[in-house]
Amino acid sequence: MSQSIDALETPCIIVDLDKAEANLKRAQDYADANGVHLRPHIKTHKLPSFARRQVELGAIGITCQKLGEAEVMADAGIEDIFLPYNLIGVEKLHRLRRLAERVKLAVTADSAFVIDGYGRAFADSSLPLVVLVECDTGMGRAGVQTPEEAVTLARRIDATPGLTFGGIMTYPATGKAAEARIWLDTAVAALTAAGLPPRIVSTGGTPDLWHAHETAAATEYRPGTYIYLDRFQVEKGVGTIDDCALTVLTTVVSRPNDNRAIVDAGSKSLTSDLLGMSGYGQLLGYPEAVIAGLSEEHGTIDLSASKEKPAIGERVHILPNHVCPVVNLFDRVHLVSKGRVVRTEVVAARGRVD
Amino acid sequence: MSQSIDALETPCIIVDLDKAEANLKRAQDYADANGVHLRPHIKTHKLPSFARRQVELGAIGITCQKLGEAEVMADAGIEDIFLPYNLIGVEKLHRLRRLAERVKLAVTADSAFVIDGYGRAFADSSLPLVVLVECDTGMGRAGVQTPEEAVTLARRIDATPGLTFGGIMTYPATGKAAEARIWLDTAVAALTAAGLPPRIVSTGGTPDLWHAHETAAATEYRPGTYIYLDRFQVEKGVGTIDDCALTVLTTVVSRPNDNRAIVDAGSKSLTSDLLGMSGYGQLLGYPEAVIAGLSEEHGTIDLSASKEKPAIGERVHILPNHVCPVVNLFDRVHLVSKGRVVRTEVVAARGRVD
Repeated sequence: MSQSIDALETPCIIVDLDKAEANLKRAQDYADANGVHLRPHIKTHKLPSFARRQVELGAIGITCQKLGEAEVMADAGIEDIFLPYNLIGVEKLHRLRRLAERVKLAVTADSAFVIDGYGRAFADSSLPLVVLVECDTGMGRAGVQTPEEAVTLARRIDATPGLTFGGIMTYPATGKAAEARIWLDTAVAALTAAGLPPRIVSTGGTPDLWHAHETAAATEYRPGTYIYLDRFQVEKGVGTIDDCALTVLTTVVSRPNDNRAIVDAGSKSLTSDLLGMSGYGQLLGYPEAVIAGLSEEHGTIDLSASKEKPAIGERVHILPNHVCPVVNLFDRVHLVSKGRVVRTEVVAARGRVD
Repeated sequence: MSQSIDALETPCIIVDLDKAEANLKRAQDYADANGVHLRPHIKTHKLPSFARRQVELGAIGITCQKLGEAEVMADAGIEDIFLPYNLIGVEKLHRLRRLAERVKLAVTADSAFVIDGYGRAFADSSLPLVVLVECDTGMGRAGVQTPEEAVTLARRIDATPGLTFGGIMTYPATGKAAEARIWLDTAVAALTAAGLPPRIVSTGGTPDLWHAHETAAATEYRPGTYIYLDRFQVEKGVGTIDDCALTVLTTVVSRPNDNRAIVDAGSKSLTSDLLGMSGYGQLLGYPEAVIAGLSEEHGTIDLSASKEKPAIGERVHILPNHVCPVVNLFDRVHLVSKGRVVRTEVVAARGRVD
């Protein structure tokens, strides 16, 4: 028997199943029509059920950012996992080896140090570990800085017993897909010339999702946020507010004066992520309201520009700025359809920091 | 048998037990010497063991910000809990009633709406619920805006069967303790004149901890962060970096170029809280390093001003900007003494959003 949203305690996460499904299908349809392979990043939802649904709809596998997330997804029956992270340390490499024995797995490296660690862990493995070289194509994060370095590391992987060179991977900076394309084309050419043509060229990110087909060199694309979308993705034009599938349901617990409302969602529910925007999320139904400040358990809303103002006790939905870390703050999510709670799921890969 | 810190996987939380104990004792000694009653806020550590230790050292009870936290602490044997929050909604009020049946409990209200909810929930209770009026003495968050409003609500509480007026409560804005003092003095005088002298005048916050004795009207003080301290509290002069008891242990997973290091702690470990500071924490041992950016699982460190630079694979400690929400991101903390892990505890009150 389904439950009304009105019976849920706040703050809590509400996921509109129909919108999430529509977002997944829209992306998969686009990918299918354009010959793009999707390998969704599960960091956004952290739910086995949605990972399975993504694969069911046509994804070639999933992406996880942490070993702990990959272990949860393997436990849930996902069979093809990409873990684009430099894994370092004896215990992590043990875990990686065990994981590689039960799922199709690929990882990344951007240094000889990391490659040599993988080599030690897989030296006596009957199944070689697939290692891609991470490339910094403009994000300014991890990754080799030049295509020449990519060739050097590809050679090292290729020469290491227990490892096999899988290709290259990048997370392109938002809005810098064009620079990333040039970088990848140059690297593919250099690797091919070196006799190590990359089998996989992995790129991605939701902000540039609808341009995925423009990266001719790519063999797979790794969007994450597209399943739920959020205020940042709406600002980037990936979808509309109405497409956003996840909101934080919260209660107005105080109206200290005419221009201020306090809700029971603070930084422990919404995070302090601004992503360059103004305000800590968007109060739905009150377009002029500004979520001006957050304490851990209080959200302070400036209503001075609002004609309509929510009353004490009113339950309001907030669209988060950045949905992924919000999901990581809640043990459970409520999956709803047409205003009724269809089921409540444990966020199985929440808090998997290592 | 104790474990070496070197065997822990990263990222993880390390709490130096000796420093935490020294911080607790220093505050309790100060309180005892100055006739101040401490009612520590457990939102910082979220651990039953430390809550018990705080009471053992002389705290008159604890403070929790959410009902879920208070339930965890009651389960752990804490007997006196203050919950300074407007609790709204049928299910929450049911839970509150159940909680009040097993511990000494007080809550707050800043509106007739909230008081009337408490009244309905406790109308037939043999033990009245203690309700304090929350006062906004400069924080700009919840709370009545004037001492006159405090009197109005105190009268309403007093007139409501099932409730008893307990006093007033404020969270003074950091550095605005003086304004808060004037506000409280005025409110105490007005309430006394109205025949409702407040039994409890509760204030607090770690930034102004060492000035607690200057608020003559206060009967209790609610510091939270003082147990661990953090970069913000050091900046406020509450303690030194060496007094800070909690760090995030992380591994350098990439050194893409000479001036950049990437660690495996991002916003999912450190939060995006800046609290007006520059950088997302402090890399201990590398004073000129700047934690310039965070993705969810990557911390990007700018080493351009650093003479010494950490190597790939090196394990480094980061002092968080704001320790409370960091604790909320980890399922476990490692409690260490003299470099050895004494025990690992589950953060029992983590994620209690409601």
